[in-house]
Amino acid sequence: MWIAAQQCADRLNVWVTDGERVHVASTAIEVDTDFQTALIGLIEPHMRQSRVTPVVSAGMRSGSFVQVPCAVAAARKIAATDPRIALYAIPPMSQEKPADFLQGEEAQIAGFLSRNKDWDGVLCLPSACSRWVHVSAGEVISFTSFLTGELFGLLTQHSSLRSATQGQGWDEGVFQTALSDAMARPERVASALSSILANAVLNQASAASGKAHLYGTLIGIELAASRAHWLGREVVVIGAQDDTARYASALKAQGVAVSEQAGDLLALRGLAQAYVALNL
Amino acid sequence: MWIAAQQCADRLNVWVTDGERVHVASTAIEVDTDFQTALIGLIEPHMRQSRVTPVVSAGMRSGSFVQVPCAVAAARKIAATDPRIALYAIPPMSQEKPADFLQGEEAQIAGFLSRNKDWDGVLCLPSACSRWVHVSAGEVISFTSFLTGELFGLLTQHSSLRSATQGQGWDEGVFQTALSDAMARPERVASALSSILANAVLNQASAASGKAHLYGTLIGIELAASRAHWLGREVVVIGAQDDTARYASALKAQGVAVSEQAGDLLALRGLAQAYVALNL
Repeated sequence: MWIAAQQCADRLNVWVTDGERVHVASTAIEVDTDFQTALIGLIEPHMRQSRVTPVVSAGMRSGSFVQVPCAVAAARKIAATDPRIALYAIPPMSQEKPADFLQGEEAQIAGFLSRNKDWDGVLCLPSACSRWVHVSAGEVISFTSFLTGELFGLLTQHSSLRSATQGQGWDEGVFQTALSDAMARPERVASALSSILANAVLNQASAASGKAHLYGTLIGIELAASRAHWLGREVVVIGAQDDTARYASALKAQGVAVSEQAGDLLALRGLAQAYVALNL
Repeated sequence: MWIAAQQCADRLNVWVTDGERVHVASTAIEVDTDFQTALIGLIEPHMRQSRVTPVVSAGMRSGSFVQVPCAVAAARKIAATDPRIALYAIPPMSQEKPADFLQGEEAQIAGFLSRNKDWDGVLCLPSACSRWVHVSAGEVISFTSFLTGELFGLLTQHSSLRSATQGQGWDEGVFQTALSDAMARPERVASALSSILANAVLNQASAASGKAHLYGTLIGIELAASRAHWLGREVVVIGAQDDTARYASALKAQGVAVSEQAGDLLALRGLAQAYVALNL
């Protein structure tokens, strides 16, 4: 039995591999919550008293960074606060200039590279922070982070736009219009956000339309700023299906050759590869 | 005795004028909270059983809009849910294209115009939503709203940037650099936000620096989009002193002739003028 664990932004995901079976569990985790406490809470039901279970993790908010350009580093042993586990962590990656870091996405990147060894192109990993990662010859060359997903979450859940953007359904036409408006005039983003509320109050715009307007605006400014990453490149979008579908749709509208891959499968694959490499 | 009340975004402010004395009170108000319930909660200690107290308000989230171009409208009688008050409201203002509305700021605008009758220029009212209002010949001609203040609040209080931006102190140099960076490359806003966290994690940037970086970035994209409002114009910034000082500093750096006025004083003046005009 071994356990894979990945923290990405405010979620901790674990995969407990026991022979042929994989148990999957997930929990929200506050910025200040201790990683190991949250981890033990999730995996405790699966642990056996009689032996020490190896845990291979990515995304822990401690430990030192490896600096790009470099390959995803091997997992390193970390002091475990619970004697029932042996804890290993893939170190997070940092970039000196512009200052930036990856924390958790190393697992997906390793999972992707394990089956695309000499691939040259750009990975787009939308999540709370979306990351645009330039990969070449098995190494991460550089990357840029955008707070897009977190802004979307804050605005739909905690802002005055809440009721104007919370709803089922999706308006792809509104999404594409908001996307091209934001790409053409990205500086208007704070005004575009305000107009989502105005359209709901004055013109009874639906929440499905408001949500598409919001997401189109936020992805639009991200694509305006990440043009150097995707223009004329092959882009693979990695993440949860809802997110990858929106990004793929937005990139296709710019004529980009884009494919999608499931983030959780790639994360597990990357962590499994790190576990095998430990040769325990 | 009469009472002035103004809701602006998520705050309700009241001024109870009793002879020579003015009692000021204020409370946070949720988007879905009933205005009159919150109002009665604030003014109840001051009401007298024996008579009906007139309340003149602005910013109620009900009632019909008056459409610009127009002057601030006279207060209209509203059905009161409590028999101890007679409730009057200055109607909110809407704009057809682009769809936009003012709700509460009418009080400050009326207060400003009462002493600047033939003034022609631009009022900038930073708050949860900042409003750029073009005024001419006593009328509001057009306006544009930006969700800047609310974004600042969400990011400093509820986001992963919380600890990187919550702190006393202010770094004016960081503010001015972030401001000019954002004005030059406004599309990079989501990446600039992410770099605030990276600078805290990798370079131990202080919270005072993070806060100035955040505010400079957000005001920078607002100024990039509102250039048509301020370029070559006389701008009066109206609001709370912390906000007006930042906006005035940002505008001065662009060579704009700018002055500041206290928002609460202008709101009370505007509501007092509406009360007198009712001739009760």
